Amino acid sequence: MDAIDVIRAKRDGGTLTPEQIDWTVDAYTRGAIAEEQMAALAMAVLLNGMTRPEVARWTEAMIRSGERMDWSALDRPTTDKHSTGGVGDKITLPLAPVVAACGAAVPQLSGRGLGHTGGTLDKLESIPGWRASLSTAEMLDVLREAGAVICAAGGGLAPADRKLYALRDVTGTVESIPLIASSIMSKKIAEGTGALVLDVKVGSGAFMKTERDARELAETMVAIGTDHGLRTVALLTAMDRPLGNAVGNAVEVAESVEVLAGGGPSDVVELTVALAREMLAAAGVDGRDPADALKDGSAMDVWRRMISAQGGDPDAPLPAARETHVVTAPSTGVLASLDAYGVGVAAWRLGAGRARKEDPVSFGAGIVCHARPGDRVTEGQPLLTLHADDESRFARALESLDGAYTVTDGAGGTGDVTPLILDRIA
Amino acid sequence: MDAIDVIRAKRDGGTLTPEQIDWTVDAYTRGAIAEEQMAALAMAVLLNGMTRPEVARWTEAMIRSGERMDWSALDRPTTDKHSTGGVGDKITLPLAPVVAACGAAVPQLSGRGLGHTGGTLDKLESIPGWRASLSTAEMLDVLREAGAVICAAGGGLAPADRKLYALRDVTGTVESIPLIASSIMSKKIAEGTGALVLDVKVGSGAFMKTERDARELAETMVAIGTDHGLRTVALLTAMDRPLGNAVGNAVEVAESVEVLAGGGPSDVVELTVALAREMLAAAGVDGRDPADALKDGSAMDVWRRMISAQGGDPDAPLPAARETHVVTAPSTGVLASLDAYGVGVAAWRLGAGRARKEDPVSFGAGIVCHARPGDRVTEGQPLLTLHADDESRFARALESLDGAYTVTDGAGGTGDVTPLILDRIA
Repeated sequence: MDAIDVIRAKRDGGTLTPEQIDWTVDAYTRGAIAEEQMAALAMAVLLNGMTRPEVARWTEAMIRSGERMDWSALDRPTTDKHSTGGVGDKITLPLAPVVAACGAAVPQLSGRGLGHTGGTLDKLESIPGWRASLSTAEMLDVLREAGAVICAAGGGLAPADRKLYALRDVTGTVESIPLIASSIMSKKIAEGTGALVLDVKVGSGAFMKTERDARELAETMVAIGTDHGLRTVALLTAMDRPLGNAVGNAVEVAESVEVLAGGGPSDVVELTVALAREMLAAAGVDGRDPADALKDGSAMDVWRRMISAQGGDPDAPLPAARETHVVTAPSTGVLASLDAYGVGVAAWRLGAGRARKEDPVSFGAGIVCHARPGDRVTEGQPLLTLHADDESRFARALESLDGAYTVTDGAGGTGDVTPLILDRIA
Repeated sequence: MDAIDVIRAKRDGGTLTPEQIDWTVDAYTRGAIAEEQMAALAMAVLLNGMTRPEVARWTEAMIRSGERMDWSALDRPTTDKHSTGGVGDKITLPLAPVVAACGAAVPQLSGRGLGHTGGTLDKLESIPGWRASLSTAEMLDVLREAGAVICAAGGGLAPADRKLYALRDVTGTVESIPLIASSIMSKKIAEGTGALVLDVKVGSGAFMKTERDARELAETMVAIGTDHGLRTVALLTAMDRPLGNAVGNAVEVAESVEVLAGGGPSDVVELTVALAREMLAAAGVDGRDPADALKDGSAMDVWRRMISAQGGDPDAPLPAARETHVVTAPSTGVLASLDAYGVGVAAWRLGAGRARKEDPVSFGAGIVCHARPGDRVTEGQPLLTLHADDESRFARALESLDGAYTVTDGAGGTGDVTPLILDRIA
């Protein structure tokens, strides 16, 4: 087998054979295919695509490049969720506990934020003492103790994907649906979950800007899961505006705790409950309704046990930023739009996100929104509060908010906001 | 400027700005753009193309990456030829001397063979004592002494192209017309010739298999030359069968000497004279006819002076291979086809070519054809003589000749051979 033959086949619009795919992923992981060869292949895949059998085999080869976790020692079925990432997407925080409270186990491997989208681990690390890195034995302990665990993926899971992702990041080959889908699914399948629900975001603040691309990604991932015997469902959900009111790290933890206490923004509650029902149904757990588990405090109990089991203090005060700046409504009317991307970039510039993988994040930085698209607002009322550790960050954050919200006179009514859940793909 | 932005622009079908091109070529040469980033960009260029202004700017940037030669110290105009490579293409050997005999100076930088196509320097090195590596001062001395020089390009000429070519070779990105055209033209323009004639080969033994691709390559190169103020003309010539009868190294030198002595195969003579006329016309030299210079011995005089000036002995016996094997006509009729690619691969397997850049070649190895497409042949008559230093090479060479020639009963006549010169592009 020869790397150049594989590159040429894909370059010329052909279909790679199973043997070519297995060899390529293995040889790349071993270093027998050079980075520049894989870069050329990744660009050819991005431009010429992959068939469903090619994507399934590519995913399988990436799974086989590393270890595969096994939760069969648990006494209940496992189920997990993956979000393609958005602005204000703290859903994992209330979701994992509520699903555990309803009878399934949730072994959730999460990531860190890069660019304008936040990372679940960065948010949880704002809780004093909480640890993201756990061994497999520790994960099992937390699952037994709390029913849910949220932690960082170890180095042994899909090392081919880790290497390929780093390469794609510097070669302009991230935006390939087959490569995105196989990257996500190889990690989720290697993680050993019995069922999987995908939250595929659509809109300015998401990776997929159009419903067509999001649908294609969702269908590709559901097909991969199904081909691997994993019960997989996807929801397409709106990411044209931020999810909930809080965007950042500690501010999102606080909002998640409100939801676990039976309150919180209606969209966060709606999506948490919808995803929890899907996760339970996919896992074959037919018992309590997640909406009840949020109301009666049982989800909060799981949250507190889970945070404590990972070294965190659920009662400790969360970090707060030193400085705030309030953006007010420029006129009276209806908040017609609040752009997720603009808000996401602003939060990132305030210090909530990182520019490079090795940068730290500010736990207190972020944005709290005081109105949502469709709400009536009065001139001069607070629209957004910006939080940062350093006043000098406000200017550039405000630049990215320029044009990110519009107030209209309200004659057009308030009913034109996109639904939160756009479609379900199974 | 950022490499990822440049890659994305080309990936998404955009046009690179002059500033992006200048920065990219310079940063790559300096090592500030990584090999894997350039590989992704090369694949995007291969699949999405480049506009004429992009190719012109890319070529200019590659020229500016190194030195530019200057022949203004000579008392006559310079003119050069470049062939895109074929099987039995020894034309440079008689061409450079005949053009010099007619009054122009020919500073020819040539290359070595790789794969099934031979290299001019490999052929000339079969002449005992002849040296391919000359300094610029030595080139000028040979040009003054003989009027023509054929030697290897020094490391200072278009180093960006040298680096990029090595990368394309291992990443399946050789077959891009903008990249091929800018690679050839950057070297030829940096070489400092005043006029250039391109011999763009078409057919199984050529890099361009179809006339459409060959025409596109020719038009792209003529446009680049014209944009750089270089008088440039291209001929499209047939490479479905070998050029001349000899394919190899020493056997091709011997055939070239026959042509310089006023004999030799008619197609080699025809193409030598046609290219010589174009080179002289492009250089504005209006004097003797090249056909006369072949007949009266003046081209041979230049050849002998040129070989001697580079340390070679024009009278020394050429190396011969130790073993021969004769392929005979399987039936009586007309030799309907003799496939250039099959013959080229056979000669390569006999030892005339190299698999890797660092391999040596066998000077004596090769093939001599005893009939040409369109010729009448009798069952059992010799069709091809294979030459190799080791008998064990015949079996694999014969495999690649399987199906490479066909003898028909001749009812269809002999007139269906493609013309040698298919078109002229100026």
